[in-house]
Amino acid sequence: MSQTIVQKFGGTSVGDTTKIKNVANRIKTYHDDGKNVAVVVSAMGKTTDELVDLADQITQNPPKREMDMLLSTGEQVSISLLAMALNEVGVPAISFTGFQIKVKTDGNHSNAKIESIERRRIDEAFAEGKVVIIAGFQGIDTNENITTLGRGGSDTTAVAVAAALGADECEIYTDVNGVYTTDPRKVPEAKMHKQITYEEMLELASLGAGVLHSRSVEMAMNFGVTIHVRSSFHSEPGTLVVSEEKIMENMRVSGVTVKSDQARVTIPDVKDQPGIAAELFHALSEKDIIVDVIVQSSPHDGVNTISFTIAKKDVNSAKPILESIKDKLSGRDIEIDEDIAILSAVGVGMKSHVGVASQMFQALAKVGINILMISTSEIKISCVIPQTRANEGLKAVHDIFELEKVGS
Amino acid sequence: MSQTIVQKFGGTSVGDTTKIKNVANRIKTYHDDGKNVAVVVSAMGKTTDELVDLADQITQNPPKREMDMLLSTGEQVSISLLAMALNEVGVPAISFTGFQIKVKTDGNHSNAKIESIERRRIDEAFAEGKVVIIAGFQGIDTNENITTLGRGGSDTTAVAVAAALGADECEIYTDVNGVYTTDPRKVPEAKMHKQITYEEMLELASLGAGVLHSRSVEMAMNFGVTIHVRSSFHSEPGTLVVSEEKIMENMRVSGVTVKSDQARVTIPDVKDQPGIAAELFHALSEKDIIVDVIVQSSPHDGVNTISFTIAKKDVNSAKPILESIKDKLSGRDIEIDEDIAILSAVGVGMKSHVGVASQMFQALAKVGINILMISTSEIKISCVIPQTRANEGLKAVHDIFELEKVGS
Repeated sequence: MSQTIVQKFGGTSVGDTTKIKNVANRIKTYHDDGKNVAVVVSAMGKTTDELVDLADQITQNPPKREMDMLLSTGEQVSISLLAMALNEVGVPAISFTGFQIKVKTDGNHSNAKIESIERRRIDEAFAEGKVVIIAGFQGIDTNENITTLGRGGSDTTAVAVAAALGADECEIYTDVNGVYTTDPRKVPEAKMHKQITYEEMLELASLGAGVLHSRSVEMAMNFGVTIHVRSSFHSEPGTLVVSEEKIMENMRVSGVTVKSDQARVTIPDVKDQPGIAAELFHALSEKDIIVDVIVQSSPHDGVNTISFTIAKKDVNSAKPILESIKDKLSGRDIEIDEDIAILSAVGVGMKSHVGVASQMFQALAKVGINILMISTSEIKISCVIPQTRANEGLKAVHDIFELEKVGS
Repeated sequence: MSQTIVQKFGGTSVGDTTKIKNVANRIKTYHDDGKNVAVVVSAMGKTTDELVDLADQITQNPPKREMDMLLSTGEQVSISLLAMALNEVGVPAISFTGFQIKVKTDGNHSNAKIESIERRRIDEAFAEGKVVIIAGFQGIDTNENITTLGRGGSDTTAVAVAAALGADECEIYTDVNGVYTTDPRKVPEAKMHKQITYEEMLELASLGAGVLHSRSVEMAMNFGVTIHVRSSFHSEPGTLVVSEEKIMENMRVSGVTVKSDQARVTIPDVKDQPGIAAELFHALSEKDIIVDVIVQSSPHDGVNTISFTIAKKDVNSAKPILESIKDKLSGRDIEIDEDIAILSAVGVGMKSHVGVASQMFQALAKVGINILMISTSEIKISCVIPQTRANEGLKAVHDIFELEKVGS
């Protein structure tokens, strides 16, 4: 049986007709190799922004159903153009929208979840030797209304198609070579992983490594889809994202990330009584304010301190909530510190290795960086540090775990 | 039961977001009157041209299926924006693509014919008090591939929706006030009809009156849909296109048209033997050359003359065919005259009135215009005349039938 590959190209890769022709030529090499190829594409470069701008000219409150109707045209344009480009280079190709291959989703417009995909038409096209081009980011609900999947939607479509087809690999083409131990622009010693686990990828993605959206990684993990994150500029292999069992020896730490868009809120002298924290975080979530790291000190003298981080952009909308909480407490001022960074080390291997946290703390101490907050999970350790020291801390932690030796 | 109205707005009427808002306000008055309103829209102004240009950058031979996939996005953008604009002015509205209301067509991509429309979702939306916005020009074939309807496609969609809903009227909004007795730019005395028959509209459309595409008129005739051709710039009523029975007294002549884009071909000394004409016209149709007026003189001395008109733009591709025919005939030169015009008078009433043709000939004779060819049908008389005299002939014929008195 022929090998089946799913490939996903984002908006930058299909940004203009010249780039679309380049993508067609890349796909052609796979087709010429006798592979079944299903390609998921996003809207061309700035198309989505242009469509949003049109809607903006009409209303500030577009019905979400109509917004999905509008935005889904972007991918429909790019799939038809890519199918044309493939036919032009002698590769038979056929494009499909979400409704044509029944990408069934829930009815949550603008942020829908895929429930199933019908493979009949894809299989028929493969049987005819055709490359299949699929519109990413879009689906239909049970009543055939067009839905869109929200951020990272095309990645999710690609993984869902790979799962439906039982594909050998789901290639995600990006503008980076693969998944690095940390940001190579900040730490030149950063190395690219040949392999990484879904769990690690999830932590790295949510911390701003930003290559793959976590929804697509979760889906790949659930269906055992092998993701291949690779560059659209050359044909060197990138990073495989696989299950833990497929990796011979897990690294204690596989990546270090830093996030500088957060602010730290400290609420001193919180009475040690149930409900205060619940009330606070409920009020914040009502305003769609996402809280990242949360630390509560052990109580002493009947009071304790709650610290947490929120995005800097949310500070202004959080202030009235914090003021109203303050009145219920000691009345002491709530501190907001915007000059912080969150430094995190991630690794599946730290589950079975002791001493990872203390190694990280030592590394920071050695370069004189003060740790303001600490939060740990099974495969992640996060430290809040002063923002001015962020890159220095990043390098120190990268060094201590010898990540420059990855892949060698 | 509420009155049901179908309205169609073309690409110019929804050319930008300001115009879309204007259209929304017009629709609102109908909705506020308690009517069920289904609105068919075309792509915004230049959108289709821009999409064609993108395809051109990729290939000169796009697969028609993929071209339909591409072009159908244009209407999807305008329906979603119009639905947003209606919601913005407080009118609940929902948009539907061709697949969502099952506009089933044959599989003839780029020129598909509508076979049926499902009214379920439209009825549901009406029951919820919503205005329904429908993408014109597009449908799906039996395998759910997206098709487009070709020229005048949105008019056809509008009439098909009106037929499916049993609508009271199908309003076609245009940049003219209605259907005139002739082109008012050429004959200032031209008057607008309050009513006209389908048959007359068909002859006037195909002769270049150009308001409605003949496919939509034929469909309206077949399903008894009343079409209302009216201006999108004001709210004065325009022209109703109805069946002959609905018009109390038919006019002998209801319109006069002139077409100047034709050339006359004259083949002298054709042997009076079967098959010559058939061979000629078959060869022309093989090259997609449309022949309009055909006249064959009665034979004398065993030969006759065949004259016909073709579009000027087709003259070059017709020449080799004419040369090859010439060799089978007397060898006498075939004449091509590009300086002609076709002047036609159209009227259902001429079926029951004698003397219409002779009146037309007299009118032309009176101003000294030489008639080069004559062709008549049940409701149309066409004369080929020198192009330099076209507008003068138009006015003379308009005068003789007293068309300036129409509507008064």
